Amino acid sequence: MSEISVEEMEEKVAELAAAIDPVDTQAMDAARDRQVTLAKVPGSLGKLEDISVKLAGITGKVKDIDVRKQCIAIFSADNGVVKTGVASAPQSVTQSQTMNFTRRITGMSSQARYFGIDVLVTDMGVADEIPEALYTDKMLTEDGKIPVQIVYRSLGKGTEDLSAGPAMTRELALKAILTGFEAADAMKDAGINLCGVGEMGIGNTTTSSCLLEALTGLPAEDLVGRGGGLNNEGLTAKIKIVGERGNAVRDLDPIGKLAEVGGFDICAMVGCFLGAAKNHIPVVIDGFISIAAACMAQELNPAVTDYMFASHKSKEIGYIAAIDRLGLEPMFDLGMRLGEGSGCPIAFKIIEAAEASMSLMKTLAEGAIDAEYLEEIKRGHYLD
Amino acid sequence: MSEISVEEMEEKVAELAAAIDPVDTQAMDAARDRQVTLAKVPGSLGKLEDISVKLAGITGKVKDIDVRKQCIAIFSADNGVVKTGVASAPQSVTQSQTMNFTRRITGMSSQARYFGIDVLVTDMGVADEIPEALYTDKMLTEDGKIPVQIVYRSLGKGTEDLSAGPAMTRELALKAILTGFEAADAMKDAGINLCGVGEMGIGNTTTSSCLLEALTGLPAEDLVGRGGGLNNEGLTAKIKIVGERGNAVRDLDPIGKLAEVGGFDICAMVGCFLGAAKNHIPVVIDGFISIAAACMAQELNPAVTDYMFASHKSKEIGYIAAIDRLGLEPMFDLGMRLGEGSGCPIAFKIIEAAEASMSLMKTLAEGAIDAEYLEEIKRGHYLD
Repeated sequence: MSEISVEEMEEKVAELAAAIDPVDTQAMDAARDRQVTLAKVPGSLGKLEDISVKLAGITGKVKDIDVRKQCIAIFSADNGVVKTGVASAPQSVTQSQTMNFTRRITGMSSQARYFGIDVLVTDMGVADEIPEALYTDKMLTEDGKIPVQIVYRSLGKGTEDLSAGPAMTRELALKAILTGFEAADAMKDAGINLCGVGEMGIGNTTTSSCLLEALTGLPAEDLVGRGGGLNNEGLTAKIKIVGERGNAVRDLDPIGKLAEVGGFDICAMVGCFLGAAKNHIPVVIDGFISIAAACMAQELNPAVTDYMFASHKSKEIGYIAAIDRLGLEPMFDLGMRLGEGSGCPIAFKIIEAAEASMSLMKTLAEGAIDAEYLEEIKRGHYLD
Repeated sequence: MSEISVEEMEEKVAELAAAIDPVDTQAMDAARDRQVTLAKVPGSLGKLEDISVKLAGITGKVKDIDVRKQCIAIFSADNGVVKTGVASAPQSVTQSQTMNFTRRITGMSSQARYFGIDVLVTDMGVADEIPEALYTDKMLTEDGKIPVQIVYRSLGKGTEDLSAGPAMTRELALKAILTGFEAADAMKDAGINLCGVGEMGIGNTTTSSCLLEALTGLPAEDLVGRGGGLNNEGLTAKIKIVGERGNAVRDLDPIGKLAEVGGFDICAMVGCFLGAAKNHIPVVIDGFISIAAACMAQELNPAVTDYMFASHKSKEIGYIAAIDRLGLEPMFDLGMRLGEGSGCPIAFKIIEAAEASMSLMKTLAEGAIDAEYLEEIKRGHYLD
């Protein structure tokens, strides 16, 4: 993409962000109607019913929606702001965990391995060196699958320190967003029909809080948490940076905000959310960083939220403002604060349960026990 | 079992209930130690870490715990108290849904079918007639599997009306409890390593509330909800019955309470919880009726709670007193109020995610990227 100009990238991003179809409200009405006629008290499946209606809107189908081909897209990048002491973990964790995703030995990827979920790992700008052998330059393998290796799309050895100036140029922000769209297209081409968006980047609760500050103007204390485990001194510094820099960029457009106080990872996540929606792939939000990116995607096209599902409630305090802004509700709260997309596997299972209920439950009329069924069960054929 | 006397049944129940081993605290300590050394911020997997520690206590193993062979045991029975107008649904729903479990077209069983979970359905006393062809008299098939049909263990066409006297004799309560143990043993013999306990029985939120009233002495208003969708008149009647009958049996022993104000379904569930614990099978509580049964099992042996996991938070108001009593926390709240064991499939997936994290995550030392790994990834062998 290096050959296209900044103006062309602006146009491309605007065009792709605008390319989200409205959801299929007829299918949603039909789904609601079916939920009411299924052999249960209406509403008794709670949020599972809402999920099945939302899936209908996204896919245009009421039932028999395939959500089994799953992928979590992870974007890794470092953040210059860590030099100010806003992160408790060393920067090298970004590099080591990014490598460990390929072995499926991290919190998210171990679950992904267990459940047979693909993981699309993209290096958006990891500072520490990763061995060449772990990289690929393609988002799809020759046989059209999600690669095991890390896709190399690095835009530099981390961003600049956002406390002292812009985290990145507008050009780099646009490039990162387009890489997110590229990932969403790769998932579509690989046949993925349910995806999640996660990240790895020490310092990215700071960038997330800055973006939410820029969007909401709330007191920084309501948007800043301890991330991996920040001490009081670090927390004070973080609140100061978020309050000052977040508010300083309030009047910029979304891409301007992302360039000033975002990260390469978050920019790519924004593109990935929008791209998933464009491609009619239901897309799951993970925790705090993921939901900050989701809020930025919403700024570029509010229709994106119709394609989003919120997985777990993050322990980071800023999550609350973000989920309210999106108008969504988290599916569960297991006290997790690991990042990486670690809320996605369980969310995928809840979505599958919702889909299974809608597809396999029958109405009282459909479920009548007739002579044919009694014959079948005698022969041991109990499931049609 | 009809040949043994009431005294022998008393002894048998007492003996089986007492036969729960203490959990393996050494394995739990080892699990906690490992959670701390895994490549993540300690505690960042939240309740998934607690689940993995509890699994270690139950199984004596820290990792590589097989929880894939899953079954939901459902006990169906009718309740004489429905004649007082405490239930919104007709009694025939107990019969029709019990039959529909065999076709896997209900809320719980559709999810079970999707996820490959066995369902062990036992008729403990369904009032309406079920065709003979749908019954089996064995809890295991010839080849040692959970049968598809309904296991016939009926103790009558529903209980007596508990508002006017005892729901059942002590003998029948003991028989029902022993049937629950039988189900737990069948699951063990079938190789089940993760189970749930559910029910089908119109009127059984009333029996559940009565039992919790008998245990806690709380105002009946705090323990009585609308079940499937009771109107105000029915709710008032239900509160009155629960307050009067629940309090009248406060001084009885647990089996006395079950006989007076319980149901055949709940008695069997009590036995099944205790039996699962006795057999070292982690056992999942579903919603309100299931948790009332869990509280009664706790009365017979408090050690049983160390083997229990609470799935979803039921919408029934009495759930709160019950979960506090057990000292557990629900894993999720999806606004479900369907019963049947419908919270179990998602809980199973959360438990699997916890197990996968513990078994497949590595410590930073174990996860080092060495020359051998770099060679492997070149050859495309990325997962050991």
